[in-house]
Order: sequence, then structure tokens, then C-alpha cells
Amino acid sequence: MEDGNLKNIEIKAIGFVSRASQHETVRDRSLMAKIVLDEALAPALDGIEDWSHIYVLFWMDRMERREEPVLHHPHGNLGVFAARSPIHPNPIGLTLVELVKREANVLWVKGLDAYDGTPVLDIKPYPDWDRDLIVVTEFRVPEWLQRIIRQDTRG
Amino acid sequence: MEDGNLKNIEIKAIGFVSRASQHETVRDRSLMAKIVLDEALAPALDGIEDWSHIYVLFWMDRMERREEPVLHHPHGNLGVFAARSPIHPNPIGLTLVELVKREANVLWVKGLDAYDGTPVLDIKPYPDWDRDLIVVTEFRVPEWLQRIIRQDTRG
Repeated sequence: MEDGNLKNIEIKAIGFVSRASQHETVRDRSLMAKIVLDEALAPALDGIEDWSHIYVLFWMDRMERREEPVLHHPHGNLGVFAARSPIHPNPIGLTLVELVKREANVLWVKGLDAYDGTPVLDIKPYPDWDRDLIVVTEFRVPEWLQRIIRQDTRG
Repeated sequence: MEDGNLKNIEIKAIGFVSRASQHETVRDRSLMAKIVLDEALAPALDGIEDWSHIYVLFWMDRMERREEPVLHHPHGNLGVFAARSPIHPNPIGLTLVELVKREANVLWVKGLDAYDGTPVLDIKPYPDWDRDLIVVTEFRVPEWLQRIIRQDTRG
């Protein structure tokens, strides 16, 4: 594989996740968290209040980086790109959250499943658009996920 | 800002975008493109065929990286995180595409607005889930975007 393009890839955090407690269950999507950007980047948030939802891209720095491309999943083996495994070649997290409030360089968001202190890489408004807004409501998901969800909503 | 966590951030491409022609209008979302993964990662795609849509994260290596946090937008100044500017501190692209076909280490996708040769960083299935699938259909977008879309759909 050619990788000449990648010589100069350098990722820098634009800020960090700040949670009320280090002991929260970060997977509880009803919780609020703060994204505290570098103060110099505060103007980069101007106008973000007009969006109700944003994507947060973050660097899952507590995950080990493994080369193993397959997960041993309860429903059979699965490629790491076919599931939302936090263990994959570049541990970039992507979560769509509700934007509750902005104050200068700080965003309050709901539903961010990232630990306290996690480096934030990027923020993008939701949804994307082309000639129209791109909101995908017709889609197909695997049978194993349908089973998990049926069990969860029954329980 | 503390940045101790970021000492070892290294991003490597998992593959590259391959387009039928280098002269295509990449913003035309009706076009197909291929994502050619490193062959060693082919097993990481096992099971991805069960999803109809995936997120593609890519590295926009043709964009200049600027420190300027504000865009001079036709509808007024806007922070780079309040728009989908390709120019922002970490030029990571994020596009939700339709997965049309997988063949070994190659994915055929529709709607990927990335140039030929663009490094791909990660692939994630759509939608995310918690207890249920997370599909956001109730949201608010800025007035300037509503105007753009009204003009486009009228034109």
C-alpha cells in the first residue's frame, strides 16, 4: 500500500472532555459532559448554538491499540469495522450528541460516551447536507444487533 | 491546556479512496467510489455487508491547515466548528455513505466526497446504538443553512 501521503499526519487535540465525576458511567447517554476547547479556539464555536446536535470526534487514549482485525463477538466473529468496537487501528471515537449550551470555549453536551480527560479532535454540526439535509432513516442493520435491541427493550 | 495525553498520537491510514477518475466532481453524491483497505485488514471488514450505511473518516490531505478559527461566510462570520468547513485544525473528513458492495479488502460506496488517493482513517457502521438505535430526526439547523437549501431545491 502506498503511504507517502501520510508522512506528515499530526493530530492535535482541540480540547478535552470534562465530566462531573471520573466515576460516572460514561455510556449513560442521559448524562451531560463538557467539552473544554483551547481558549484560542473559542471563536471557532461562533454560531454553533444554532445547531441542536453535533458530532464529536475524540481520541480514545485509554484503549489499547491492537492489530487483531477480528472481534470474538457473542454472535460470532466480526471484523472490527463491522461493529462499534473501541479497539481498532485508529481509536477515534465518534458520537452524535445533543448540544445543550455554549459558553465561550465550553460546550455542554448530552450523550457523550467519552471519559473525563479524553482529547477532542474535531466537532462537526449535524446533519451534513448536499442539496438537502442528509438524514438517513432507511437503512439495514445486522441481525445480531436487532436481537440485542429486542432483548434490551423487552428487559 | 494540558496536552500530556497527546504525546503519542499517531494516525495511520487503513487504506485509500480510489475513484473512477481523478477529474470527477467529488461532491456529486450520486457517484460511487472505492475504499481500498490494506490487504492485512480485509478480515476487519467481515460482517460489514450487513450494514447498508457506514461512516467514513478520512484525512483531507489536500487542505491547507490554517489557524484562523473564523470563516468569512456569505451569511456572516462563522466559527469553523459551526459549519462544515474542510479547513479546520484537524482536517478529518466525516461522511455517511451507502455501502453498495464489499469484495475482500475493497468497499464500494456511494456518496463519498473525498478525492482520489485520500487516506482513510476509520470506518464505522451507521447508526450508533445504545439501548436502541440512535437516529436523530428531530433537530435544529441555522437559518443560513435553511436559506441555502430552500434556494437549492427551488432552483
